[in-house]
Formats: sequence, structure tokens, C-alpha cells
Amino acid sequence: MSALGRPDDAQVAIFGAGRIGKIHAGNLAAQPGVKLKVVVDPDAGAAAALAAKHGATVGTVEGVFADPSIRAVVIASSTDTHAELIERAAAAKKAIFCEKPVDLSYDRALRCARTVREAGVPCLIGFQRRYDPTFAAVRARMDAGEIGDPEMLVVTSRDPGAPPVEYLKRSGGIFKDMLIHDFDIFRWILDDEAESVYATGSCLTDPAVASVGDVDATAVTIRTKKGRLAQINTIRRAVYGYDQRFEVIGAKGMLQAGNLRPTEVVASTAESVSADKPEHFFLERYRAAYALEMAHFFDAIANGKPIRTTIEDGVKALELAEAATISWREKRIVAL
Amino acid sequence: MSALGRPDDAQVAIFGAGRIGKIHAGNLAAQPGVKLKVVVDPDAGAAAALAAKHGATVGTVEGVFADPSIRAVVIASSTDTHAELIERAAAAKKAIFCEKPVDLSYDRALRCARTVREAGVPCLIGFQRRYDPTFAAVRARMDAGEIGDPEMLVVTSRDPGAPPVEYLKRSGGIFKDMLIHDFDIFRWILDDEAESVYATGSCLTDPAVASVGDVDATAVTIRTKKGRLAQINTIRRAVYGYDQRFEVIGAKGMLQAGNLRPTEVVASTAESVSADKPEHFFLERYRAAYALEMAHFFDAIANGKPIRTTIEDGVKALELAEAATISWREKRIVAL
Amino acid sequence: MSALGRPDDAQVAIFGAGRIGKIHAGNLAAQPGVKLKVVVDPDAGAAAALAAKHGATVGTVEGVFADPSIRAVVIASSTDTHAELIERAAAAKKAIFCEKPVDLSYDRALRCARTVREAGVPCLIGFQRRYDPTFAAVRARMDAGEIGDPEMLVVTSRDPGAPPVEYLKRSGGIFKDMLIHDFDIFRWILDDEAESVYATGSCLTDPAVASVGDVDATAVTIRTKKGRLAQINTIRRAVYGYDQRFEVIGAKGMLQAGNLRPTEVVASTAESVSADKPEHFFLERYRAAYALEMAHFFDAIANGKPIRTTIEDGVKALELAEAATISWREKRIVAL
Amino acid sequence: MSALGRPDDAQVAIFGAGRIGKIHAGNLAAQPGVKLKVVVDPDAGAAAALAAKHGATVGTVEGVFADPSIRAVVIASSTDTHAELIERAAAAKKAIFCEKPVDLSYDRALRCARTVREAGVPCLIGFQRRYDPTFAAVRARMDAGEIGDPEMLVVTSRDPGAPPVEYLKRSGGIFKDMLIHDFDIFRWILDDEAESVYATGSCLTDPAVASVGDVDATAVTIRTKKGRLAQINTIRRAVYGYDQRFEVIGAKGMLQAGNLRPTEVVASTAESVSADKPEHFFLERYRAAYALEMAHFFDAIANGKPIRTTIEDGVKALELAEAATISWREKRIVAL
Repeated sequence: MSALGRPDDAQVAIFGAGRIGKIHAGNLAAQPGVKLKVVVDPDAGAAAALAAKHGATVGTVEGVFADPSIRAVVIASSTDTHAELIERAAAAKKAIFCEKPVDLSYDRALRCARTVREAGVPCLIGFQRRYDPTFAAVRARMDAGEIGDPEMLVVTSRDPGAPPVEYLKRSGGIFKDMLIHDFDIFRWILDDEAESVYATGSCLTDPAVASVGDVDATAVTIRTKKGRLAQINTIRRAVYGYDQRFEVIGAKGMLQAGNLRPTEVVASTAESVSADKPEHFFLERYRAAYALEMAHFFDAIANGKPIRTTIEDGVKALELAEAATISWREKRIVAL
Repeated sequence: MSALGRPDDAQVAIFGAGRIGKIHAGNLAAQPGVKLKVVVDPDAGAAAALAAKHGATVGTVEGVFADPSIRAVVIASSTDTHAELIERAAAAKKAIFCEKPVDLSYDRALRCARTVREAGVPCLIGFQRRYDPTFAAVRARMDAGEIGDPEMLVVTSRDPGAPPVEYLKRSGGIFKDMLIHDFDIFRWILDDEAESVYATGSCLTDPAVASVGDVDATAVTIRTKKGRLAQINTIRRAVYGYDQRFEVIGAKGMLQAGNLRPTEVVASTAESVSADKPEHFFLERYRAAYALEMAHFFDAIANGKPIRTTIEDGVKALELAEAATISWREKRIVAL
Repeated sequence: MSALGRPDDAQVAIFGAGRIGKIHAGNLAAQPGVKLKVVVDPDAGAAAALAAKHGATVGTVEGVFADPSIRAVVIASSTDTHAELIERAAAAKKAIFCEKPVDLSYDRALRCARTVREAGVPCLIGFQRRYDPTFAAVRARMDAGEIGDPEMLVVTSRDPGAPPVEYLKRSGGIFKDMLIHDFDIFRWILDDEAESVYATGSCLTDPAVASVGDVDATAVTIRTKKGRLAQINTIRRAVYGYDQRFEVIGAKGMLQAGNLRPTEVVASTAESVSADKPEHFFLERYRAAYALEMAHFFDAIANGKPIRTTIEDGVKALELAEAATISWREKRIVAL
Repeated sequence: MSALGRPDDAQVAIFGAGRIGKIHAGNLAAQPGVKLKVVVDPDAGAAAALAAKHGATVGTVEGVFADPSIRAVVIASSTDTHAELIERAAAAKKAIFCEKPVDLSYDRALRCARTVREAGVPCLIGFQRRYDPTFAAVRARMDAGEIGDPEMLVVTSRDPGAPPVEYLKRSGGIFKDMLIHDFDIFRWILDDEAESVYATGSCLTDPAVASVGDVDATAVTIRTKKGRLAQINTIRRAVYGYDQRFEVIGAKGMLQAGNLRPTEVVASTAESVSADKPEHFFLERYRAAYALEMAHFFDAIANGKPIRTTIEDGVKALELAEAATISWREKRIVAL
């Protein structure tokens, strides 16, 4: 690992032993030459269980940053801890892998990005969708010129069900919590920046969502600086599962990224011809993406390659999420 | 035909012997008990050819309205003649089948609709998509409760290529010329009315389109009075053909209306697994829809049934097209 | 019509006013310059109804063959009348359109074909599948070299349900009644002749089928003279509808002909993602094929073009059906 | 591990460090409580590389069977070593995971199975397809009664390209080398045994195959004791990749197991609408199956559960392969 030493002594700490922390821990354990050394989580039982599974020890935030043998940290703790942990990791010169979002505040995220830049440490923000084989194939085929210049993008992004209201209260709202991924897809696929954003939303699936000042269905339109058009439609409840598609049309054709299914069984009965529903939710749908994301992180830091999803990407997606939130609340088109 | 006499003496005149006129003439010739009597077109050769094909005679506007044996007229002439022909037909108490749009001016269309209403004649506006078997099946399955209350609608509507600039100049702009169908789909599928419209557009496929003050790509968002959300994306050039899809999601699932293909051949080669492109353009894609539309017209007037696509629908779609045009031009959200 | 006079005086008689007779009558009525003059059917009511619908008269076999104004006959009567009607039509120098099979006896069919050949009249046998747009596209793409030399063919041919036992008794057995179409597809797609046939069958869906000495499920393998291999699987009852597929693999790829669906609606629900079942049975599935077959017949006889599905094809398919019947009954491979 | 001790001391030896050996080694390394201790391969370099990768040592056949700490062996060496290694492992009371086939000789395999049975050791034969999520889902849905009693099975099994002639010479012929998997699928899916087999084959893709007395394309038909019918079509070269499908029809419907694709991208261009080709070959297509097979093996031996793909299954599949070979060579139907 360039500045970080040889790959075979890459010791790593993880903050957060919850659902996504376990995924990341499993994926980093699969990287050759990488060792999970310390697990940190306020929930002592969760920390101990994850540490035991991977032969690591339970530690503290302070301990991690004081330990020079730890070359990289994976931040999978709650959102309100991200920015501070990123900054402390940057100060300690550790490579950073942090779940999205950088922070719920655009200004805070901006400061955080500056700190990272000045520290010169690698920092990957967890926009795992860019590592999804289907999504990445679209991008690669666009790079190869298959559809010529892109003109329009349509993103469909639907969850199988809304999270608990307690979660929603602290989530920053649907645009920062859910659409932030779609804003990143937008920037990545069109390779362009927003000139204006229009967003509207409704509470259609559960009145409880409205009770905490949020919406559960949104329609967003983005015009880019080059005049391209993008539309994003999202909803918190698609009873058929996690619906993750996009399509991009250009002068020479269209590329569509479709859903994955658990199996390729087709049943023909007296009622219909039916296939499996999409993979149920993000842990299943993006299983391969999470693994490839982690492999990219260690490959990049070991070989001095550029990180594909940087903290700047995290900041830009957040800027779009803030603009969309304002557009929705104030019922106006927001220029960027 | 209730007020119009027995079906076996339903004599009909057609205005317009062009591309769509020929389609309608062929379809009305196939209706039992219906006879094409007169063809009217400024192009004498076109009129004569179409008349000859169906054993009709070439006539004049005046002649048609003076002939009491003509019970119904099909208006397939240029857009600027629609409103006047509708009003004269209403005055002459003839049943009316008119291609969309009623007029390029919302106010003019509104007056026209009032005249028709007061005359009490049946009047069908040619929103043929509602008669398409695939689209109609979605509507029927929604009526049967298959997806519960609809929540969001996404319409994809792309032409294989832009018409000549000369056509575009007189077309009323993309929202009235092309999206008027999509606005009708929106109203029909969601069974709801618009509360606000946001539209943006770009000239992305051919600078000639911009030279006549039009755009060739649009992104439209409609909020309904019930808080539902709809997005429409259109482009004038999809190199893979006529792309006519929509999907509607509700509390119990999603229904998608997909493209039709000329054949069901799948080829697996060293390069890919490929299927046919969609049917090339509207004459092919909506062949069945045009036939069913005409059958519905004569069935409705013969049996006193309500017309499915009324002049009020024509007016409402036009109102949305005007609102979208204003939204695009003035870069603002337009309330209805 | 070359030897048959000008197209605009092509008067036609039809034998058989049943299900398939009605289809053919409708299709011939749609041919420009063709007029259905006489309908013949032992069921006087059926004959009268069909004649009335198309402005024809009810007639007799003798009357038809004695009427020099009748240039062509469509034979859609029961199988046991085919061979005699063909021979009488040939003697009367009328163009012949005859439903399959020529006869249930290979020897009888062979004699019949000789008579036709000697009379020099055009004779089309109703292998309508060759006119199906999907099936015909496969053949055309093979002709264009898309998959190189064909190597293997797999045909899936399943009915939605078995006909009544009374029908089965007179049907000649499943190989002559149902698989005769598949044997024709085999010859047409591989453009090769059988060297040996192996057929086995079972009575799996309804014991009544066995009670009349027939089977309702078959598996057939054909080796061609060029060493190519073909497999056909059939069953009388597919609860999901009429399943009509084949696939052919060659040195450069595979072409698959798939089922047609009534609509292109896809439903995603809490249970599955489902599409329409295939078109229910042959009248729906081959609607376009029947129309194109009739158009080809009149085009061929009017313009002196070769008939695409000749009586020789009818004889060859019957030969395969007889061989398969023997193979199944005697449990042995039959050489041809 | 029941008779084999606690899972956390399950030490394992692998015979064979080639392509499939590496896959199995990787999968067993991922089993909790399982440790690869020894790698044996005549190719010292291959053995050393695989041992190094998994922290194992290079050993000998004798050493493995003399080492009581080794509880299980994975046999991934060349086919001619399988039977002897199985018997020595049985004698040494080790659990056995052996790649198919048990042996190229049915009689030898039968003796081998007897030895295993008498030794009472668990023995899994590597019919990995039964562990494929898509294939296994078909079986599970049949068990749940979704299609009622199965009636017919159609198996399509095509390789992307033929192996080198040197390999073919020692392969036992296409029926034992390639179709053995399909014969196992047949037995597993229909849950029935063969009453008769008819097989024919041709050399269509490469004359070199014929030069070693083999064929590269086959068509097999099996009648079961219950009268069900199965057809298998295979070819050594499908230019579009590894084609692994089957479909089974029953009284209540059909289940089809389709191919897997690397991504879910669909491209619409001026030429066609295309998807990815199937996964290229067995290592990619059955990646998940191999992992699940290994997990099942250790789960079964640890928890005393029955092995799903036993040596008896290996013997039965080989019996069918021998029968098919005879049928092809002697051009006759073979009764079992």
C-alpha cells in the first residue's frame, strides 16, 4: 500500500457492527493481505460478536486513532458520527472508507472534504451502486461509445418498504437518505453537473411519514449544464421488492440497467407466465457491489490508484439533495 | 344507429386522404353496415385514389354538410381545419370522429367543445392509445383493483425521428404536437387531474429544431389534485424505434405497458442475445388501436353508448400542453 | 391470375363453413379482386350463415366443379373429403387451397399429389405456420446466413387441451393430427430430409385418449440425411395455453421463435413479476399466418409464382407422421 | 461432525490442484471450522501454489490416508483416479467429496459404491447442478406441488466449445463426459427411473471429434418407468456461450430454468434490442452451485444429514450414460 505500507500488513478498524458493518467486515476479511484488527461499536455485544467472527478485538475510537499499525478505517457507524470520524482519521493519516452520507449538512460535509484533501489521505464514500456489475457495465459501454453522447436519463429507485418513523426522524429526509444514491448515479452516468433541480414529493404510502415532515414518494427533474435532462422517480414502498433501474438514451441508442432476480425460473400456469421478483433489498441487490467496492478500496490504496467514489462525490450528491429538499419545500425550481 | 339511423345505412365522409386518413378509411370500410361515401381533400389526386379504393366519390366540404344521408364524418385533415369542421359537423348534426388535437389554441378548443355539447352530437377525439390492447389492459386491470390505488406514473414516449422543420413550424410545439397523447394517458391512467405542471426541454438531437423555437427532448412532472405524481420523458429521436411505454405503481403492485415487436425471434450469437426492435412508428405500433378506435366509434353511435375519448378529453389534454409550454418557456411551475 | 384469368374476376368456392372455414372465408374476402362466390357444407345452416356474411350463395360440390367462373377452391371440410376434392378440383383445372392433411393415408396422398402434378394446377396445403411472421423471420434470417449451417432443431408444440374423444377417433392419431405441422416445420427449417425417425408416446393427461388407442404426449427424434438432429416434444394439454416454439442452432448462433402474447403488460406484485400467457390456441396464435397464407395463395396464382407449401410438402409430412406412428407402435427406429 | 468429530477440527485434504480443485479449495476455505490441511497433485508446482494460497502443505496420497486428523477428502484429480481414491478414503473412514464421474466403467463404479456403503462413510458425488439456486428452486417448487405431477422434461445442455482432442480421447465419450450431468438432472427432476433410452449423435462442429470416435451433438430420449418422457439435446459448441436450461411440464403448469447472465444490461440500438450472453462456462455459471455444494457437504457430515448427491446417484447416471452410448453405437433402443 503506497503510503500505507505493504498490503500484507494492512490492518484495519471498523466503526459500526450493525447490518452494513457486518457486510463490510466480511468483505474486508476476503481481501488478501488485509486483516480486521479492531471493531468499535457503542453496542458492546454487537462489537464483540463481529470481532469474534473475524478474529479481531473490540476497541475504542481513541484506541484506533492512536494505533499506528492500523492503516485504514471503515466507517459504518451512525450518520451523525461520519464527519468527525473522517476528520479524525484524516488527522491520523489513515485511509478512509466511509458509508454515505458524509453528513446531513452540506456545509459540514464541505469542511470535511477540505480536511481530507489537505490531509492527502485516500477517502472512499460508499456509493456502492457504482460498483454494481450491471450499473458499471452501462458506464463502461458508454465510455466505449456505444450510445454516443447521452441525452436523457431516467432513474427508478424504489424501496420495498419504509423504515421505522424513528429512523426517518433522524434521516435528514428522503432526498438525503434515499435519493442521495440516485443523485450520485445521475452525476456518474451523465458525467455532467446540475444546472437546476425541480423536486416534488407526496406522502402516499403511510401517513406516519408525513407526521415527521417527510414524504415517501418523489419526482425529481434535473437539467444539466450541458442541457441534458434527468428524471428520478422514487417511492418508499414497492410491494414487489427493491426496484433499482435506470436507462440512458443517447444519439446512438439506449442502455438500460435492470433488476436482478434471485433465480432464473419462469413459471407458466393457468394464470400467467411469471418470473421471480427483484432481489428484495439493498443487502441482496448490491451484494456483489459491496464486495467489489471493498476490493477497489484496498486495490486503490495498495497501488496508489485513484478512488472511484470520492468525498467530493459525496459532497456533490449532498448538494443536490439539499437543492431538492428546498425545491420540494418551497415549491420552486432551484438553480445550482 | 340510435339517433343516426340503422347501422346498415351509415354513410360516412372523410376529410383528409393522407397517411392517417388512409388508415381511418380502411378501418371504417371494415365496419359492418358502414359505407365510405365521400372523400374530401385539397389534394385532388389523393382524394381520388382513396375514393377509388373504397368505392366512394370525391366531394367538397359544403357537399358533405349538405348531404343528409351522411351520418358521420371522420376528420383527418390538417390541424388548422379541425375546429371549424367539428363545429360545422355539429351544426349539421353529424357524428364526429376527429384526429387530435381539437385545435392548437386552448380557448378555441374550449369554444368548439361547447358547440359540440350544445349540439348533442357524439364526438370522438383520436386519442387512439386508449384503444391499444396493451394500454387498455392496464386500465382494465387497474379497474379490477389489481394494484390498488395508483400512486405514481412514469411515461416514456419517444419517436424514431423528428418530422421535417416545415412540419414543426406549424405543429404548435412539442407539447401540443407530441406530448398531447401523453397528457391524455396521464389523465386516463391516473383518473385524476393536474394540480401543477413543471416542464423543461432541450434541443439535443437536431439544431434545426431549436431554429424554429422548439425543443426535441422534454421532461415533464405533474402533481395531481390527489397528490399523485407523474413523470413524462420524451425525445424526438430514438434510433431503436418508437418507444411507447408506461408504468404505474400502486399500493398493491406495478403494471407496465411495454413495446410491441414485429416478431418474437431471439437471436443468440457470439455478440449478444437479441430481440427485435419495437414496432417502428405509430402506424405500426397502433395498428390495432386505430382499428379498435373506429369500431368503438361506430359501436357507440349505433348503440347509444358513451364515447370513450371525448372532446372534453381533447380540451383537457390541450390545457396541459399549454401549461407545459408556459412552464418550459417561463421556467416556472404552472398551477392549474 | 396467369392461367386463371385476371385477378379482378377471381371467383372462389369454399368447402367447409366450420371454424377454420370461417377464418379462410374472412381472409379471402380481404384479398383485392377476389370474391367468395359459393359456400358448400353438409350443415346447411352453417353454409347459409357464412354465405350471407360474405355475399355468397350456398352451393353443391357438383355445382362448384361445373362452374367455369370459379377459378379457385378452398378446401376446409373434414379430412376424409380432402383427397377427393383435390382430385376433382385438379380435374376441373381450379387452383387449390387445402387444409392439412392431404389424407390420413400416405399412399392415397401420394396418388393425389400425382394427380395434381399431372393436372398442373397450383395447390397449396395449409401449413400455415410457415407464414407466421415470427417463424418466417427465422427462416429468412437463416437464408441470410445469420447462424451458418443449421445443426440441431428443437420443436416444442403443445396444445392447451385435448379435443373430444370422438374427434380423436377419426384423427389418424396424434402424429398425423398434431405433429404433422411439426414435421413440416422440421423439413422447412432444416431444409433437409429425414434419414430415420424415433418416436415414443404416452397417455399422461387423460386416460380417455388411451381408450381410443392414441397418446397425448410424444417425444420424437429425427436424424437427417446430412446428419443433423431434430427433437420434437408435444403434449395435448398445456394449462398455460398454446405453446409454439422452436429453436435452431448453427455454427454461428441460435435463432429461437417464441410465443406471442395478447398484450405486453407486465405485472409486478407481492407474488411475482408476470406477463400474459401465450395466445390461447391456433386461431389466435396463427391469425396473421392464416391471413398471409391466403394472400400468398392469391398472389402466387395471380402472378405465376411458386406456391410455398405444396402438396409434395403435404405428402412428405405425412410420410414422417406414418414413420413416427410405426416407430411408436413397434418400439423401433424407422429408416426412411 | 457426527462420526467425524466436531466441525472446528475438520481438517481436509484435496486431491487435484487444477481448475476445479482450486474452486473446491476456495469454497472449503470459506466453510466455518474447516481447514485445508494437505494438497496432493502430481504437478508439484500446482500443488505448492494451491497449498500456499490456503496455508496448507503439499502431501502424498499415502500421507493423507495415514493421517487420522484428516476427516474428509475432496477428490478433484483425474477421472481414472476417482474410484481408487474413493475406496481408499472409505477404508480410512474419511468423508468423501468426489467430482463426477465415479469411474468411466459402470461395473467399477458399482463396486466402488458397494465399498462406500459397507464402510458407512458419507460420500458426495459432484453433481453441482442440483445445488444451483435456479435449478434447486425448480425442484423445490415441484415439491410444493406447483405444477402437479411432472409429465415431460426437456433439457438443453450446450458447451461454448469442445475440449482438446487429447482430452476427448480419455473422456469416455460425450455421454459419460458431458451428458452425465443431464442424466442426473433427469433422475432428480422427474424423480423417476429410466425404462428405455434412445440416443443418437453426430459429429457436426469439428471433424477432429469424429477422428477419436466421438460425437459432438446428441439427441437423447428417455422413457421412464412411469411413462414420462424426457428429451436431452446437447452440442459441444454454442458460440453464444454455455447454454444450460431445462423445462418440465406437469398437469398444472410448466417450470423453466433459464440461463444466468453476467449483467442485466439491455441495449437498444439501430440494429436490435440485446441482452448479455449467458455466463460463459461452468466455472462462471455454477459458481454459486459449487459453493453451496461444498457448504452442504460439511453441513451434512457435521450434522449427520443425508448427502443430497450420493454415490448411488453417480452410479445411476453412469448406467444411463452407458445405455446411451450403446444406443448410439448400435442404433437401437436400450431397455434398462
